[in-house]
Amino acid sequence: MKLFNKITIIGVGLIGGSIGLAVKNKKLAKQVTGFFRRKQSAQKAIRNKIVDCASFDLTQAVKDTDLVILATPVEAIKNISRRVVNSMKPGAILIDVGSTKKEIVGLLGKLAEKRDICFVGTHPLAGSEKSGLAFAKKNLFIQAICFITPDKGTNKEAILKIERFWKQLGAKVVLINPAIHDHILAQVSHLPHMIAFALINSVPDNHLKFSGSGLQDTTRLASSPADIWRDIALSNRKEILLSIKNFKENLIYLEGLINRKESRKLTHYFTKAKNRRDNL
Amino acid sequence: MKLFNKITIIGVGLIGGSIGLAVKNKKLAKQVTGFFRRKQSAQKAIRNKIVDCASFDLTQAVKDTDLVILATPVEAIKNISRRVVNSMKPGAILIDVGSTKKEIVGLLGKLAEKRDICFVGTHPLAGSEKSGLAFAKKNLFIQAICFITPDKGTNKEAILKIERFWKQLGAKVVLINPAIHDHILAQVSHLPHMIAFALINSVPDNHLKFSGSGLQDTTRLASSPADIWRDIALSNRKEILLSIKNFKENLIYLEGLINRKESRKLTHYFTKAKNRRDNL
Repeated sequence: MKLFNKITIIGVGLIGGSIGLAVKNKKLAKQVTGFFRRKQSAQKAIRNKIVDCASFDLTQAVKDTDLVILATPVEAIKNISRRVVNSMKPGAILIDVGSTKKEIVGLLGKLAEKRDICFVGTHPLAGSEKSGLAFAKKNLFIQAICFITPDKGTNKEAILKIERFWKQLGAKVVLINPAIHDHILAQVSHLPHMIAFALINSVPDNHLKFSGSGLQDTTRLASSPADIWRDIALSNRKEILLSIKNFKENLIYLEGLINRKESRKLTHYFTKAKNRRDNL
Repeated sequence: MKLFNKITIIGVGLIGGSIGLAVKNKKLAKQVTGFFRRKQSAQKAIRNKIVDCASFDLTQAVKDTDLVILATPVEAIKNISRRVVNSMKPGAILIDVGSTKKEIVGLLGKLAEKRDICFVGTHPLAGSEKSGLAFAKKNLFIQAICFITPDKGTNKEAILKIERFWKQLGAKVVLINPAIHDHILAQVSHLPHMIAFALINSVPDNHLKFSGSGLQDTTRLASSPADIWRDIALSNRKEILLSIKNFKENLIYLEGLINRKESRKLTHYFTKAKNRRDNL
């Protein structure tokens, strides 16, 4: 079933590219356009059937489109959103796929409303430390959680349509308030990233060669793109700071148990951790 | 080539069991005996060709043996070492495979010397969050780093023989001072474990269901056996406390960058982390 005539993807990387592949694979749109800055990426995306056609002009890329998907880092979304909204046709739907929602939903919701565009914030939990077009996969969203984060101003029909869209890509949709989304994501995603960054930066250079799979897995997230995570850290700043504070309290408690040689309490602390992890 | 006539393994779990499988597979000994507390484990180990025979009497298990391998958690090593050493035949070799070395090498080196037993501390980097006989694999040590940690009292011939032993099991042997071993391992292994425990314990229960592969990988080590890690935390206490202190300083620096919205320094911090992680 064609949900949309024309879809435009801005930011054809891991997420944007995977959406293109999945939409074309499921035939959810008549035409998928990608907005690109570099010819090489555009050629690659067309060759790999990620998009049907490429555009290098933002206004042209979005003007006749029924659904525009913003799949760039958060700062870039903020920077181009006004131009995108002003170039879209009234009644069209705009979504983003960013990892932080409160700031974006507040900003883009207002911008879009003024021009009779329906903005819906979304966030598929399908990112990875890998980035870029080369890692795009048509089944990236199958069984993945996808948050849809409406606020009170969000158009109800647009929510339903976007819910259908993500379900057809295979995702399990969870509707959630943008602020609650950011509170939860700070803990289950942003905090592990910050910890991975700090952990790998805290091990002395000359000892890294002795690392086994333990350090490797614990710091896998530190391979994530720096620009994306700078934007997330700034966009969800307060919640991330809160989650770091909470984590530090836990670590300081553990530090105290080790320092005071509290054998029984250490067993209890590690057992609690093991049970929680085994149940994930 | 038979390196030893008789080998006895005390603690036939993931590591001890894998040694048994590998020794029998490579025919490095005429006979492999396992010391067990429970009949069921003994039967399983014999059925799965991990050991040739089982003993439920510690003294009997080690008395005619050329090589005794202590593969229990660190506290258990400390508790049974006197009885083991007193029951071994003079000239035999005793090794352990524990994750901390300074304390064990100090204690067992002295005990062994008095009875003319050659103690050599070793530590194969082949642990996992999985534990127990069921996860033993004959190729667990292939290409794994194995530390051998002699001190000035350690018998030179025994070191050479144990070096040959681990190389024949496929490991890459690194000779290192016990205190330096503990300093390095605190950073590349013990610290990531402490962080994984604290991280999973710091995420609220009702948010865990929203975790993706990021939190899962970052906390994989938290599934490790609580008793083993309690012992490691206490045995390598000072170095682990030092590594936690160092990590906290790094995290507090990152916290400050986020708090002060230092966009460029955040990019730099995350890029440095990415480069270090990509080079592991």
